[in-house]
Amino acid sequence: MSPAAAPFGRVAIIGLGLMGGSLGLALRQSGLAARVVGCGRAELVARAIELGAIDEGTPQAAGAVAGCDLVVLCAPVEASIARMAEIAPHLCPDALITDVGSTKHDFAEAARRIFGAGAAQRVLPGHPLAGRELSGLEHAEANLYEGCLWLLTPLAPELTAAQQQWKAVLEALGARVALCPPNEHDHTLAYTSHLPQMLSTALALTLEHRFGQDQLALQMHGGGLRSALRIAASDPVMWEQIATSNRQNIVEAMLALEEELRALRVKLATPEFRASFEAGRQLSRKMRG
Amino acid sequence: MSPAAAPFGRVAIIGLGLMGGSLGLALRQSGLAARVVGCGRAELVARAIELGAIDEGTPQAAGAVAGCDLVVLCAPVEASIARMAEIAPHLCPDALITDVGSTKHDFAEAARRIFGAGAAQRVLPGHPLAGRELSGLEHAEANLYEGCLWLLTPLAPELTAAQQQWKAVLEALGARVALCPPNEHDHTLAYTSHLPQMLSTALALTLEHRFGQDQLALQMHGGGLRSALRIAASDPVMWEQIATSNRQNIVEAMLALEEELRALRVKLATPEFRASFEAGRQLSRKMRG
Repeated sequence: MSPAAAPFGRVAIIGLGLMGGSLGLALRQSGLAARVVGCGRAELVARAIELGAIDEGTPQAAGAVAGCDLVVLCAPVEASIARMAEIAPHLCPDALITDVGSTKHDFAEAARRIFGAGAAQRVLPGHPLAGRELSGLEHAEANLYEGCLWLLTPLAPELTAAQQQWKAVLEALGARVALCPPNEHDHTLAYTSHLPQMLSTALALTLEHRFGQDQLALQMHGGGLRSALRIAASDPVMWEQIATSNRQNIVEAMLALEEELRALRVKLATPEFRASFEAGRQLSRKMRG
Repeated sequence: MSPAAAPFGRVAIIGLGLMGGSLGLALRQSGLAARVVGCGRAELVARAIELGAIDEGTPQAAGAVAGCDLVVLCAPVEASIARMAEIAPHLCPDALITDVGSTKHDFAEAARRIFGAGAAQRVLPGHPLAGRELSGLEHAEANLYEGCLWLLTPLAPELTAAQQQWKAVLEALGARVALCPPNEHDHTLAYTSHLPQMLSTALALTLEHRFGQDQLALQMHGGGLRSALRIAASDPVMWEQIATSNRQNIVEAMLALEEELRALRVKLATPEFRASFEAGRQLSRKMRG
């Protein structure tokens, strides 16, 4: 695709970690953006250019967004909110702002605060469900978003033309796009993403406190344990911000899980255990499809 | 290896599911047993012969063990205990009995009850950590035990010559063998295997109760959820017997986990969350090696 034909001309990616780096690689390799400008610490900018994730870059967000028709905030939630406020005065009037943050309510509220009545047109919050336990630019991959579910949480029922175009770009990158309100996103993800993370972390802490010094005990496991602990290795900064910005929903989900655990524990050696186990098995099989 | 040179002559495998079927395939393909006799329902025996997992078979355990120098009980814990009592009068005096059950205390106690002073010589309980969420003969694979940790939980400090030979056979099949007392096995596995299983089941139940009718919500997840729910699809019969035979240890492990979850929940949006998350991350990384 020639630069002139690209759906977006100049695109700024604010934040050059796993998500931003991968998006830059995907946009540049697909030709879906004419030019990709990165924003991050100087050494990250240099490395991102070297890896082919961006065409040019700068540590100054205000400078990065100048002349851009699309700005993608690719930092953890709180950082992206701060950056959105910082770049607001420097944006082209028609520029679309989107993000890849893990929670959406706080980001959507910040957009309304910053852009007022224009927020729904100017900002389309998003969240690609493509996280990994690895983080950082060095793990970026052009195909990270292929086949992933990319949720968009618009602030108004109708997408603008530019927002439709962003959706089409994501689909061209291989993502499946679905729309849902920001609050519903956060509530559902508390159960389907944040709860499994807290479980993995709590399991790791339980083993650390029980067997921390006992290397042999920790080796006594099948494959199940390693896979249960995999996501406990995730990025602490990102998860600190998820925990803060979605605390209420996560507390609800954790309480529900704690209640299920308690009920299962009480049933352990009773005839009802089997029925509960079977119900969990059905759900697991349904998820596997 | 010629039959005459095989470490074991006639071997009975009692129970033709994933574990027994895989062991039969491995023993026959490696030539480490001269002849493998299977015991299970008539249709399983026929299918196991067809798949090459056994040379011959019968539904009668007493008949299967006649003339065998090794008997491997490959049913869930309670069933293997019942079978051990049933075959005891029909065994050759020098036959070694072993098993692949998921808990070891009850099996070891049963061996003492059945064989009295001879139990430590005649019975060597074992547990290959090679389970999967799949079960049944159709999923059997000759290489299931390659690279797995196979725990042996002897009833006396010294292994007999036949027990040493079984250990050598397991190593020849590619398993890493480690010894530990039956009670220590059950206590450790409650944390490293049974607890992750209960967590996966409790997570599945939480999602089922919250979103059972809401297909879209269940699709809103990254890879983390699917891997967290994978083992919830495990065999209910096997887990019912694990829950019964190791209830006390599993309750201890679940209580410890519930306490960690509660503490993490309370810390969610506080500065201490980061330190807990980091500690879990360290353990997860250590496990990955």
